[in-house]
Amino acid sequence: MSRADTEATTPCTTMSCTTEAERAALHHALDLAAAPGVPAGPNPRVGCVLLAPDGRILGEGRHRGAGTAHAEVDALRSATGPVRGATALVTLEPCDHHGRTGPCTQALRDAGIARVVVARRDPNPVAAGGLDTLREAGIDVAVSEDPQLTARAEELLRGWEHGLVHHRPLVTAKLALTLDGRAAAADGTSRWITGPAARAEVHDLRECCDAVLVGTGTARLDAPQLTARHEDGTLRARQPLRVVMGEGEAPALPTLPGAGEALRLRTRDPEAALEDLFDRGIRHVLVEGGPTLAAAFLTAGLVDELIVHLAPSLLGAGPAGIGDLGITTITDRLDLELRDLRPLPTPDGPTDLRLLLQPRTR
Amino acid sequence: MSRADTEATTPCTTMSCTTEAERAALHHALDLAAAPGVPAGPNPRVGCVLLAPDGRILGEGRHRGAGTAHAEVDALRSATGPVRGATALVTLEPCDHHGRTGPCTQALRDAGIARVVVARRDPNPVAAGGLDTLREAGIDVAVSEDPQLTARAEELLRGWEHGLVHHRPLVTAKLALTLDGRAAAADGTSRWITGPAARAEVHDLRECCDAVLVGTGTARLDAPQLTARHEDGTLRARQPLRVVMGEGEAPALPTLPGAGEALRLRTRDPEAALEDLFDRGIRHVLVEGGPTLAAAFLTAGLVDELIVHLAPSLLGAGPAGIGDLGITTITDRLDLELRDLRPLPTPDGPTDLRLLLQPRTR
Ligand SMILES: NC(=O)c1ccc[n+]([C@@H]2O[C@H](COP(=O)([O-])OP(=O)(O)OC[C@H]3O[C@@H](n4cnc5c(N)ncnc54)[C@H](OP(=O)(O)O)[C@@H]3O)[C@@H](O)[C@H]2O)c1
Ligand SMILES: NC(=O)c1ccc[n+]([C@@H]2O[C@H](COP(=O)([O-])OP(=O)(O)OC[C@H]3O[C@@H](n4cnc5c(N)ncnc54)[C@H](OP(=O)(O)O)[C@@H]3O)[C@@H](O)[C@H]2O)c1
Repeated sequence: MSRADTEATTPCTTMSCTTEAERAALHHALDLAAAPGVPAGPNPRVGCVLLAPDGRILGEGRHRGAGTAHAEVDALRSATGPVRGATALVTLEPCDHHGRTGPCTQALRDAGIARVVVARRDPNPVAAGGLDTLREAGIDVAVSEDPQLTARAEELLRGWEHGLVHHRPLVTAKLALTLDGRAAAADGTSRWITGPAARAEVHDLRECCDAVLVGTGTARLDAPQLTARHEDGTLRARQPLRVVMGEGEAPALPTLPGAGEALRLRTRDPEAALEDLFDRGIRHVLVEGGPTLAAAFLTAGLVDELIVHLAPSLLGAGPAGIGDLGITTITDRLDLELRDLRPLPTPDGPTDLRLLLQPRTR
Repeated sequence: MSRADTEATTPCTTMSCTTEAERAALHHALDLAAAPGVPAGPNPRVGCVLLAPDGRILGEGRHRGAGTAHAEVDALRSATGPVRGATALVTLEPCDHHGRTGPCTQALRDAGIARVVVARRDPNPVAAGGLDTLREAGIDVAVSEDPQLTARAEELLRGWEHGLVHHRPLVTAKLALTLDGRAAAADGTSRWITGPAARAEVHDLRECCDAVLVGTGTARLDAPQLTARHEDGTLRARQPLRVVMGEGEAPALPTLPGAGEALRLRTRDPEAALEDLFDRGIRHVLVEGGPTLAAAFLTAGLVDELIVHLAPSLLGAGPAGIGDLGITTITDRLDLELRDLRPLPTPDGPTDLRLLLQPRTR
């Protein structure tokens, strides 16, 4: 996944360092942006905190989706007292363009904000340049270099940023496999190949993605809910769009109060499916399988990252965890780059492995 | 793998601590015992170093197999000057019984050795009790508690100790798999699924085992040498017995100067094969596959540890890495305990994973 190198495109020479209090406030701004009430999708998730010189929080805000106030303006509005001389901590560089709302740079200047600290530069060429404009207006600016803050901001914005650069949603595929690559036993049973920690991660993934996608085969055989649930089975606050893809028949997904909308895509073309989803505002798709659909996305080169939950078990028989990739000889194999490796222990049970991989370009 | 808890069975209350110089000498004794000239198999690999009170090495020795001097006697003989008052560092507790040679406890006493430090107690009930006898004779005794020394001594002796307890060889099975559990591509090509680090470990394993075992299928299709080689292809100093197992026809293994002896076992019964090998003095067998043979040993419950080299690649088709285990439903799966997990990086190439697993008893 290449990402626009935004640090390089917008020179900003007079950066100052951030304080402990500012970093804490940026973490809080990230919490605001990540809250379930903030929709994912085509708009960036942004949070903002206004800090008085003595460290008091004067206001906080977040962006709640297209047509609503940006986080900076939301924070300024929330303040009950004066904010002149305050520092604005924003998870994303303030915009500098006249979109549906006025530029945030202007709003911050008008309010008399003295300093602006951001967690991430804006990779969107239309909106970028905010920090330069602020600096030219005499406002002190800084970009946090704290790796934890950078990672959190990246994580929160990666679907949106991927869309800006690639004009299609970010695709995460997830597979649960035994050590010998089986998705199920010979009789079709697969509950449970992996342990509770792996299954909990699936719900985390569903909650942070915009859409969950399965093939008609899985819809027919598993009749899945495709909801993001807590351990006790109750629904989480944010739910993904639930999509079934394929040309054949499949039962409709169950209608559940609080679940995400259900969508049927009557195509076998991964690219067309992603285009359709992108047009609907989807920026991050979780391909949950089955083996045929995962293979189709991998073969099309449309998997940005693959999460494998590997159970330390052997079956010796049963359906393969990944469908035909059109590969016949060893030198044509699909190589993946191992990005992260983590054990997922089960109390008194076997330890699953979690692998994060990316298709490797040879 | 249960191992006799020898610390508990032989009480030894007046243990003293070991010094830095003693621990270094024990490492040296382990090097002596591990040298390629020391045969593996039915006799323990033992090394001994004699240390003067001023730290000089007075003698060193090792056991070179059945009927030859024990390491302690070998070390005493190697000394050119007096050894009275010296410390003997021995990798294994000195024997206390009259076997083909006299008890080492007697030899150490007769030589006037003042102190004996061992890396491991003797789990063999026939030979044990050496430290107690020495202590009763007024010799100072100690067992090293250094975890590195303990681990090295255990590693060196585990095939031998397994034989004492279980009356069959220790079995290590090794598999090379893609992430989707394939042993080869659809056209049968499998060179190379894994990278150089994984392949080098195979040669390390061959060198430290007593025998390497493959099925007739692998013998027919791969015509393997089954030798332990260096990176440049030259043979290593210690070579395993090379065994092909199965009832059908298979080409004879190539006759190579310096290679281990070749043996054909005309059976499909893993237990019978291990019995035969045990009777020939084999204490550690490396089952190198293929998929059918590995499955047969796993199904028979005769795999003590499984090493999987997992390549982060997908094939989507091709022969399964593990043969039929007779498992039809998910709850009957063969669970393994993950004992160790290590990445094996390839420069500029994909990072293989090395998993060490043990069949889990549910
Ligand atoms: N282990 C796991 O991680 C995991 C995850 C999910 C499911 N599963 C298991 O997988 C099994 C179902 O396997 P499956 O492979 O049949 O399920 P699938 O991949 O969900 O569905 C396959 C079907 O999707 C349609 N399809 C859509 N796009 C396609 C494309 N680009 N190429 C080919 N077909 C496309 C085809 O049917 P049309 O005729 O409708 O086009 C195809 O038959 C179930 O037993 C389920 O439990 C396992
Ligand atoms: N990825 C890896 O780690 C790895 C390692 C080795 C080989 N391989 C690949 O595996 C392929 C060969 O596969 P394979 O499964 O045919 O090889 P195999 O396991 O070496 O040989 C299977 C044959 O062994 C005999 N046999 C011996 N004991 C048996 C028992 N207890 N149960 C059943 N059969 C027994 C049978 O033939 P009889 O009729 O003679 O009894 C059987 O057909 C080759 O292509 C090779 O490259 C892969």
